Amino acid sequence: MQESQARELAAELDRRDQIGWLRERFVVESDGPIYLDGNSLGRLPLRSLARLDQVLRAEWGGGLVGSWDGWIDLPSRVGDELGQHLLGAGPGQVLVADSTTVNLFKLASSALDARPGRSTIVSDRGNFPTDRYLLEGLAKQRGLRLDLVDFPEVEGPSPDLVAKVLSDDTALLALSHVDYRSGALADMTGINRVAHSSGALVLWDLCHSVGAVPIELDSSGADLAAGCTYKYLNAGPGSPAFLYARADLQASLRQPIWGWFGQTDQFAMSQGYQPVAGLGRFQSGSPNVIGIALVDEGVRLLAEAGIQAVREKSLALTSLLIELHDAWLANLGFELMSPRDPRLRGSQVTLRHPDAYRVCRAMIADARVIADFRAPDRLRLGCAAPTTSFGEVCEAVIRIRQLVQSGRHLAEAAQPSRST
Amino acid sequence: MQESQARELAAELDRRDQIGWLRERFVVESDGPIYLDGNSLGRLPLRSLARLDQVLRAEWGGGLVGSWDGWIDLPSRVGDELGQHLLGAGPGQVLVADSTTVNLFKLASSALDARPGRSTIVSDRGNFPTDRYLLEGLAKQRGLRLDLVDFPEVEGPSPDLVAKVLSDDTALLALSHVDYRSGALADMTGINRVAHSSGALVLWDLCHSVGAVPIELDSSGADLAAGCTYKYLNAGPGSPAFLYARADLQASLRQPIWGWFGQTDQFAMSQGYQPVAGLGRFQSGSPNVIGIALVDEGVRLLAEAGIQAVREKSLALTSLLIELHDAWLANLGFELMSPRDPRLRGSQVTLRHPDAYRVCRAMIADARVIADFRAPDRLRLGCAAPTTSFGEVCEAVIRIRQLVQSGRHLAEAAQPSRST
Repeated sequence: MQESQARELAAELDRRDQIGWLRERFVVESDGPIYLDGNSLGRLPLRSLARLDQVLRAEWGGGLVGSWDGWIDLPSRVGDELGQHLLGAGPGQVLVADSTTVNLFKLASSALDARPGRSTIVSDRGNFPTDRYLLEGLAKQRGLRLDLVDFPEVEGPSPDLVAKVLSDDTALLALSHVDYRSGALADMTGINRVAHSSGALVLWDLCHSVGAVPIELDSSGADLAAGCTYKYLNAGPGSPAFLYARADLQASLRQPIWGWFGQTDQFAMSQGYQPVAGLGRFQSGSPNVIGIALVDEGVRLLAEAGIQAVREKSLALTSLLIELHDAWLANLGFELMSPRDPRLRGSQVTLRHPDAYRVCRAMIADARVIADFRAPDRLRLGCAAPTTSFGEVCEAVIRIRQLVQSGRHLAEAAQPSRST
Repeated sequence: MQESQARELAAELDRRDQIGWLRERFVVESDGPIYLDGNSLGRLPLRSLARLDQVLRAEWGGGLVGSWDGWIDLPSRVGDELGQHLLGAGPGQVLVADSTTVNLFKLASSALDARPGRSTIVSDRGNFPTDRYLLEGLAKQRGLRLDLVDFPEVEGPSPDLVAKVLSDDTALLALSHVDYRSGALADMTGINRVAHSSGALVLWDLCHSVGAVPIELDSSGADLAAGCTYKYLNAGPGSPAFLYARADLQASLRQPIWGWFGQTDQFAMSQGYQPVAGLGRFQSGSPNVIGIALVDEGVRLLAEAGIQAVREKSLALTSLLIELHDAWLANLGFELMSPRDPRLRGSQVTLRHPDAYRVCRAMIADARVIADFRAPDRLRLGCAAPTTSFGEVCEAVIRIRQLVQSGRHLAEAAQPSRST
């Protein structure tokens, strides 16, 4: 394929883009870089600026402590919106709170308590580090076994493979819905089914799928899930995370961090912890109002566009990227490390290259294309549909091609022996 | 005392106020209410608006994921500032992270692990609810005993009283530095000493003292502490909390929520949790950048004024309030429930009144004085020195007096049987 042909194709795809208007709702500097790292930190929605001004000046500055009347149910209110529009979850099952790590800890701990007598936790050796570490900590604390399974990296865990590693000793199966390395999208329904048939509970990490992939927690039979909001939900660096617990499980779950926001009749401040009846029992301390307001804005923008439209564009973007990789990059030492079948991938394309570290550095410094590097040799190209154009994907691959063809990336410092 | 005399006295105190300029650094609406609830939610610093604009537009919107280079050490950088200016803590001992409840959980859990074989946790039955609940949860999970002691409400726990309830079975003593009910200020040094002589670790909740009272964690021999930033630090509703762990204890502590931000060589994303050497091991998930930036601004403002000057004004404010209470309110059914000795109190004055609930409601609705009610019959009047004037304290007491003399508070609805 000629570059001119590819650029024409991309321009045509941009003209036909049903959610092209969405990009204008974000801060995008006209002379800025091509940003293929929305899978790490999403862009800033313009409306979030107005919302923060409202929350700060009017609500905090003007309304002072009285504004808590409107703030106190933000965790569940925004959680319900998130559930309805992006998680396939009915009301009362999603809370915006804490960090992903803390939420995974609360959920995993509750799940282990709910499966007494079973002594194994199963996860993926390729799972995101924080997931592995917190499970390792829980296993150690409780004298349980953590079984980290080597699922195939590009395809991820399938129901068949999962079925083979579960037993009647498995208390909890903890997996990522979309693999942070390859972007592989797991069959949530199928995996829930095999896990339940062995009596285990399932905890899903939705960090790399929420806002990019339609999720159907309720209808897939999911038990527990958590995820972050700073990637595809565009809620800002380190914004509060969310958690999901299926309605019929909630009464049997007791999360470990007992706090006043989970207490029945909170402001009676009485003796003896008595958790509220619903999901509110998963709250601990004061909710981060400013952070949750930003999550609210992020969810609203995606709800307006519709997650199906976002998914459709996302797949077209990653398909174009893979097509251009095949045409121009495969013969430069790159190898595709994401599923080719669009139904099986999230919203990123991962490429392996022996010089991935230097390529990534040179892309930023020299080619003005921002992606991210993951040790030892992976380049992750995220295609956040609301803010990435087909023209940018095309131009990015052209620049990577030119960079590697010219060898300019070799001028970058080599990867340090320990990455920082 | 005549009202006119009191007003003159207050005006004179305002003229002599060394930190009167500080109030202009905050959003204070000229026609707003008298705000005596900074002990619940501090006011909005003007500079925080500019800082958020910088963090949002320039750093997030413009710098995108590359801004993490400057964000990643915010928890320790702002923690060190907080430690230096307000906590009497040398560098490397304070982190801004998570909520107070989560931090107390991490610290208490670590402390219990560090005292194996001891099976009792001691706290105050009057301690803030979240502290009691999380200790109750930890005790239950580990089969330990939680001993809630009835210390005198107005005076709080003294070293002598504490010494009587500790034994060689006490693993952890957990207390508030300033009692949220009475404002009683505990003798941190004396209590640390008696706790250490029994071999227990001490965990301090600093929520109601940080930013109002000089704190000397290092020189008092404190082990562990946590606190919030949305009261006297003015960092906004639900802003991130902080934690302190004394340097020489850190290596022996393992907090329970193992996450990628506490991992050695974090971005190597390697197998097996290996916590970093210092306090960073207390981090779990991604730090809330926007929230921590607001904490930074709050700390800077107080650092500029100096905590000694803040304390001096705070004591003058509460002393005036108590003097006016004695003159005008004591004969209207009010009773002082805070220490009379200024050295023994924080920055609030608590009054008991049989109709406290209705008085508090009428103060807001009718008298435009915002304070807070705590069940069953307490009115908390917070005197945040940076933003409260002597004139306001005088005017507030005059309005409360008029309100109760006239009986207008009786028109308010009675307290619901369960407060909300």
